Amino acid sequence: MTDVLQTGAVIGILGGGQLGRMLSVAASRLGLKTHIFEPGANPPAADVAHMVTTASYEDEAALTAFAETVDVITYEFENIPTSALDILEKLRPIRPNRRTLAVSQDRLVEKAFLSEHGLRTAPFAAVDDEVDLAEAIAEIGTPAILKTRRFGYDGKGQARIMTPEDAEQALADMAGAPAILEGFIDFSHEVSVIGTRGADGEIACFDPGENVHRDGILRTTTVPANLTSAQRTDAVLLTAKILNTLHYIGTMGVELFVTPEGLIVNEIAPRVHNSGHWTQNGCTVDQFEQHIRAVAGWPLGDAKRHADVQMENLIGDDMDRVPHIAKETNAALHLYGKAEVKPGRKMGHVNRIKT
Amino acid sequence: MTDVLQTGAVIGILGGGQLGRMLSVAASRLGLKTHIFEPGANPPAADVAHMVTTASYEDEAALTAFAETVDVITYEFENIPTSALDILEKLRPIRPNRRTLAVSQDRLVEKAFLSEHGLRTAPFAAVDDEVDLAEAIAEIGTPAILKTRRFGYDGKGQARIMTPEDAEQALADMAGAPAILEGFIDFSHEVSVIGTRGADGEIACFDPGENVHRDGILRTTTVPANLTSAQRTDAVLLTAKILNTLHYIGTMGVELFVTPEGLIVNEIAPRVHNSGHWTQNGCTVDQFEQHIRAVAGWPLGDAKRHADVQMENLIGDDMDRVPHIAKETNAALHLYGKAEVKPGRKMGHVNRIKT
Repeated sequence: MTDVLQTGAVIGILGGGQLGRMLSVAASRLGLKTHIFEPGANPPAADVAHMVTTASYEDEAALTAFAETVDVITYEFENIPTSALDILEKLRPIRPNRRTLAVSQDRLVEKAFLSEHGLRTAPFAAVDDEVDLAEAIAEIGTPAILKTRRFGYDGKGQARIMTPEDAEQALADMAGAPAILEGFIDFSHEVSVIGTRGADGEIACFDPGENVHRDGILRTTTVPANLTSAQRTDAVLLTAKILNTLHYIGTMGVELFVTPEGLIVNEIAPRVHNSGHWTQNGCTVDQFEQHIRAVAGWPLGDAKRHADVQMENLIGDDMDRVPHIAKETNAALHLYGKAEVKPGRKMGHVNRIKT
Repeated sequence: MTDVLQTGAVIGILGGGQLGRMLSVAASRLGLKTHIFEPGANPPAADVAHMVTTASYEDEAALTAFAETVDVITYEFENIPTSALDILEKLRPIRPNRRTLAVSQDRLVEKAFLSEHGLRTAPFAAVDDEVDLAEAIAEIGTPAILKTRRFGYDGKGQARIMTPEDAEQALADMAGAPAILEGFIDFSHEVSVIGTRGADGEIACFDPGENVHRDGILRTTTVPANLTSAQRTDAVLLTAKILNTLHYIGTMGVELFVTPEGLIVNEIAPRVHNSGHWTQNGCTVDQFEQHIRAVAGWPLGDAKRHADVQMENLIGDDMDRVPHIAKETNAALHLYGKAEVKPGRKMGHVNRIKT
């Protein structure tokens, strides 16, 4: 890989969902091509990618052939099997790096990493069996939440423990997977910072957004977030600390709980993030292009926010509202081209610009 | 074709240049796919298209196969051979319609159409031979400009006649092609209106932009343009008149000369237009998405301008400046992925947002 990718270079993207789709579009603005690797047929990103490989992460030949056509490899989700990464990293650079993946793939490792570097998290303890769980509840108290250490997203793989009597069912819900117990945080609201670190160490963070979830799924992100200027500064500084500590290259999402005692890190996502979609219509350079710029060795773009925006996810039957949204003033639609509407499935989003 | 194209529907685009590329990206935002038909190999639009057919406009089988995979056909340039259109229109709707193409493919027909509908143009006369030319010069006077009736763009196929002595060389420059003599207009500046008419007759025009050309090629478009509010209204109304008269569906560019006596129509382009690229960073819905919305039977989007913008074309060696532009604040880059830099070749553009 040359230091700075030039027109016509190819970025390999692991994962072909909507994030890969919007990364492909961003790459095109910089004259770069993308090659999507995705096990599922007809992924959203395929509509706007230069090449698509449909193969499993266990298919060594497909992984090798994929890597050989690209200049650098990035990803749109963090749960990539280690065996696939082992093959790919011998052939091409992977950005963000594997240490970041190792940290973010496991909630326990992630929390330990954050604590170790002086960042506040919810109280937590590893839970492999009922003995661990009883000890963890004794230490952390209830209410608390038991989560699988790996592969959880959008509220999946989680069980609430309101009283110690819920413990048995919660552990059963983990289906034998290694878990982590996290104490409840008494927070007023959640915000997230989307930050990018370039290949040369330069950092640019977007203005924090305020997130509202329903049923464990992000519904809206609003900028500006309800934060004091000190909290805004804290949020950006701790994001920069995480990016620097990990020698990160690319865009990251950092979810934060706002409490009277300060900001608490909920989780980090080593990729472009749903709560950063507002940047498509609120900034000159959006989170997708920042990620591509970082991965391609380019200088980062101007992350300044030029508008107030509310991003609303379109989930499942929300698609029925698209004909009305299409007629709204100041509304920018972003649909993902998914043929089948399912409950809880992210089908698109709309950025409403407040003028 | 259903009235309104739904997620997963395919828009066929004739031509795979940068306009097709940016149309493909816009289609993806609405959940639609594109299929590019382009004789040249590896066209810019291929990087972000769902399908690409590489074939000549004389290849009937390829045209038929292309049409059968798409729901509607549009185009990114106006000089499509009539024989190809004859084949395609039997299979799928072509938007904008063929009447528009017939008008805009021939400068003489276009000028006659505009005059017929009460719109002011430069004085003009058909020139097929030296007798016609002598008569035309006698009527229109010099300086004047002789242009081929068809296939001219970016200043090609044109010869200036400063005095009657230039006539012979100018006619030779036409190489036997039917031509049109146009009188010089004493204009202060050029503006263009990018307007869209939806399938239901709804019309939305973007704020006029002010164009600066060099060597016959557009260099910059700036919004807002230097226009009185009466001129701005005139510009939009005459654009709407052209769109309605042609029963047009899609986005059109209308170039206008500003003179003390009013606006004079220079030319119309039945497609998205270089002078509308600023809308990508100045409006919630850009000219490309408006075109796709119209062609797909969707309601038009909100064309309101929310920022002052200057679009600068990156032509040939201007690409050397990209590393610097990438670091500018408020600068949005749009590169076309063209491998080879040539003098006069449009390689990309940058939209600079003025805040």
